[in-house]
Amino acid sequence: MEKLRRRVQVARGEQPADLVLRNAQLVNVCSGECYLSDVAVVDGYIAGIDVPNSGYRGREERDLEGRWLAPGLIDGHMHIESTMLLLSEFARLVVPRGVLTVMLDPHEFANVLGMEGIRYVLDEGRNLPLSSYVLLSSCVPASAFESPYRVLRAEDLVPLLADKRVLGLAEMMNMPGVLAQDEQVLAKIQATLAHGGVVDGHAPGLRGKDLNAYAAAGVMSDHECTTVEEARERVRLGMWLMIREGSAARNLEALLPLVQELHPPRVFFVTDDRDPQDLISRGHIDSMVRRAIELGLDPVEAIRLASYNTAQYFRLYDRGALAPGFVADMVVLDDIRTFQVESVYREGGLVARDGALLAPIVSAKRRESANTIHISSLSLDDLRIAGEPGSVEVIGIQPHQITTLHLREEAPLANGFIVADPGRDLLKLAVVERHHASGRVGLGLVKGLGLKRGALASSVAHDAHNLVIVGTNDSDILSAAHALEEMGGGFACVVDGVVRARVPLPLGGLVSLEPAPALLAQLQALDAVAMELGCTLEHPCMTLSFLSLSVIPALKLTDQGLVDVETFTLLPLQRR
Amino acid sequence: MEKLRRRVQVARGEQPADLVLRNAQLVNVCSGECYLSDVAVVDGYIAGIDVPNSGYRGREERDLEGRWLAPGLIDGHMHIESTMLLLSEFARLVVPRGVLTVMLDPHEFANVLGMEGIRYVLDEGRNLPLSSYVLLSSCVPASAFESPYRVLRAEDLVPLLADKRVLGLAEMMNMPGVLAQDEQVLAKIQATLAHGGVVDGHAPGLRGKDLNAYAAAGVMSDHECTTVEEARERVRLGMWLMIREGSAARNLEALLPLVQELHPPRVFFVTDDRDPQDLISRGHIDSMVRRAIELGLDPVEAIRLASYNTAQYFRLYDRGALAPGFVADMVVLDDIRTFQVESVYREGGLVARDGALLAPIVSAKRRESANTIHISSLSLDDLRIAGEPGSVEVIGIQPHQITTLHLREEAPLANGFIVADPGRDLLKLAVVERHHASGRVGLGLVKGLGLKRGALASSVAHDAHNLVIVGTNDSDILSAAHALEEMGGGFACVVDGVVRARVPLPLGGLVSLEPAPALLAQLQALDAVAMELGCTLEHPCMTLSFLSLSVIPALKLTDQGLVDVETFTLLPLQRR
Repeated sequence: MEKLRRRVQVARGEQPADLVLRNAQLVNVCSGECYLSDVAVVDGYIAGIDVPNSGYRGREERDLEGRWLAPGLIDGHMHIESTMLLLSEFARLVVPRGVLTVMLDPHEFANVLGMEGIRYVLDEGRNLPLSSYVLLSSCVPASAFESPYRVLRAEDLVPLLADKRVLGLAEMMNMPGVLAQDEQVLAKIQATLAHGGVVDGHAPGLRGKDLNAYAAAGVMSDHECTTVEEARERVRLGMWLMIREGSAARNLEALLPLVQELHPPRVFFVTDDRDPQDLISRGHIDSMVRRAIELGLDPVEAIRLASYNTAQYFRLYDRGALAPGFVADMVVLDDIRTFQVESVYREGGLVARDGALLAPIVSAKRRESANTIHISSLSLDDLRIAGEPGSVEVIGIQPHQITTLHLREEAPLANGFIVADPGRDLLKLAVVERHHASGRVGLGLVKGLGLKRGALASSVAHDAHNLVIVGTNDSDILSAAHALEEMGGGFACVVDGVVRARVPLPLGGLVSLEPAPALLAQLQALDAVAMELGCTLEHPCMTLSFLSLSVIPALKLTDQGLVDVETFTLLPLQRR
Repeated sequence: MEKLRRRVQVARGEQPADLVLRNAQLVNVCSGECYLSDVAVVDGYIAGIDVPNSGYRGREERDLEGRWLAPGLIDGHMHIESTMLLLSEFARLVVPRGVLTVMLDPHEFANVLGMEGIRYVLDEGRNLPLSSYVLLSSCVPASAFESPYRVLRAEDLVPLLADKRVLGLAEMMNMPGVLAQDEQVLAKIQATLAHGGVVDGHAPGLRGKDLNAYAAAGVMSDHECTTVEEARERVRLGMWLMIREGSAARNLEALLPLVQELHPPRVFFVTDDRDPQDLISRGHIDSMVRRAIELGLDPVEAIRLASYNTAQYFRLYDRGALAPGFVADMVVLDDIRTFQVESVYREGGLVARDGALLAPIVSAKRRESANTIHISSLSLDDLRIAGEPGSVEVIGIQPHQITTLHLREEAPLANGFIVADPGRDLLKLAVVERHHASGRVGLGLVKGLGLKRGALASSVAHDAHNLVIVGTNDSDILSAAHALEEMGGGFACVVDGVVRARVPLPLGGLVSLEPAPALLAQLQALDAVAMELGCTLEHPCMTLSFLSLSVIPALKLTDQGLVDVETFTLLPLQRR
């Protein structure tokens, strides 16, 4: 009650504020206007906003000289693992860009570490100059053909709903499960609704009655729209439209016309997946605001879609706007149209200026993370594929796509075994179970990488994140696997038994301990070596990391074997 | 979970709905559009909305032949006591007009019955074809100069916050208390915020730093704006603008231009106080939608301000729109521009058609209410005013205003006592404490009624609702008081000891047990008799009922005496 009292006193000018920002061009997402104001802050909250020279006094005062003052930006849905950065290093990148709140779906950590992975992300988010909330990963595993660390059931997730920083259930990717009224799926949704949480959606291409059913089941949003027609259908059904602009999947330009036509109350921005290079070059949610304005959206509305609307969806009533009683997350802009950030205040404290983070980053306790790569039993024998003359199923890579082609080729044989044939760009692909050292290995062939020598390995392998390794020969494949084991995961490139490039991602085999620039250098070095070995893809390990995602067509490989995603069945490599 | 499952099955067309409405011109407040649809309902919720002839089947099916289908209307703030009707009789009037949810502030019952009054309104609201929620009356008594049944403190109110139908704290009229950080005021707000409830405001004329302080204290809305300037200031400060159109106070026309200029997300409609005549002739929230459209607002936006936005403010996530997972409160319109209601569905069931309520009304248990008028000790002596030659303070009535003038007149004397002097239109005014038979009586003079004979009495006397009686002579005043006691409260007109007209309001001395038409007839008869006695006011008892409201300028009378509202002090009738 003391805080309420102090807030009232500061608002009335009866006692000095902690901070007063003068002559701010206030970006008011509640009224849709901009106008000159003085803003008084106390205890991390906005107490009063009055006309300039209103007489507010503060222990600290600053004249913004007419610079814009906008609410801190919010990312409504993202996977920190896609950045391959510690949340603290991610904060170092985005806080100076005005992003002060992120909604995290720790889906990859949950696949690798189970509930401990979700708790880790919650813990990692404390004591940072960035507010983070968690949505509980709803689909671990992504399918029955994948082998994560362990299955997460409703009864595992429910206890965490009591955590103030857990806002609900993360993207419900199991659309078939919703439509088939799967017991576990409905139990997860029901429990979330009972706790007053939100249920995020993920419904690519879902239309008509099935989309109705998906919404009727309690799913409240979707970030997978790619066309105005899909988006309009969701808005009409009362779902919240998350406009997603990731590094790969980019939907802002396609969907913005709907915002300009309807100005619906239920729409906001999310990034979903952004890689380090993209974060450094393009930015984060700030890049969506910038782009939306370029595309003709009113700047205040663009900012509303990255602050107020997002907070409303997540029921964070004191965030996303600059008004009395709201958290004082504030971004000072030199220019609103280009969203040129001059400085950033979080909970009333200056945390970034001129692109640099000022707030100290309390390094995460958990840096000395346990090695999660367990493959000790792996040997050359495990990589052998007995074969016969005739055709063989082959995964065909499509550049810049996570979908693959289902090819059939004449089997490359050598004394009764199916082997790689770089001449025909047929490489051997192995997916090695790495959570429990079960020795389970899925084997197949892949076409489209162009690698002429050596092997490439990744412990980032959606969604179960077992080891996925492609190579021209078994011994390099085995060496690459052991290189990952030694690093505790990451990316590696091996030639003739020698590790030529490595990107250690020791945190769950997913995340680096390095700052973004150092990580980026490692990634670029890796790509350079791969290219030198004949690889024709820009980022071969990124491509690798999706070859085991068993829910994306057409043909994928998991530790359980070859998955025909069209028929959702396991396929033998050769038909008898 | 069974309900979720059934909803999904109906949405997919796997099993028949309870109800299917075909060829509805859907009024979509989420997208801002209207288009032809089929709507499938199960278990009282909307399961699916698809294009016409989509194949939805239902146990009950109806072709709307292109009639509009809008969400049920919501009144965001009203006092049921102002209608002088039982909630059930009120429902009989408004449900056929499309009003299906009301937010009640039982402020008058709370003054007369304490917490029991609030619990009564909660109970009365069950089993009606109208959803009602309660906001806890925050200011009982309205001021220290008033004597309600008892004072309501934070610790009295807090337990009720746990009730699912209690949405928060009702209009915080004690602005001085908020600004002065009164312990009790902040305690009530703090507890409400802690429970995730809303805090309604009431801030006539509050501007600048004080308005900032009011918002910073946690007050979220205001329904007392009369100008665009006031309204804009509130919207800018993140407060929700409740546009109020009561029977007396009407602000829609004045404030609508702001909606048309800014289309702010935080604005909705409320009626606050409507009398029976107004309800019968003009209607309720439906009249605001109609008027807003007449004034040029887009019909879908007008309906959004009476449904979706209101539900958002009160955090009722499954109300206020027609979409899968939303409560099936639906209004069929013959014409959207005139909001011509053809039929009304509540939770998927037909409850009204062609202006008539179809749903049975479970008559309230509590009709045999205890008599709350306790004045047994009252006698003629209690009405005597010893006086001296010289001036006397007089309350001056202003037609159609609840504010009064502070007059000073030559005291009308008869053998040492101040008496009424109808010739100068100076009538004696008595306010008799009626909750505890304390015998406390406030006495004064009033000018402006024009009554030439007899006395008029009311047990509706804001906000403490003691008996307020005006008369040309003491014995008729006493008879009028006893007439009210006998009826258990209401309005009475007495001449020469004979009761010439009576309006029994036995429920707390505030509410009738009659249906609206019967009550209206009684009220009209009363006004007719008063006019016959020389009264120059249209509704004299309505005027009486505000003469003891000690928070409205300039001069008022309570059982404690004459209150100078300008200085907030008790005044002697004559200055020595």
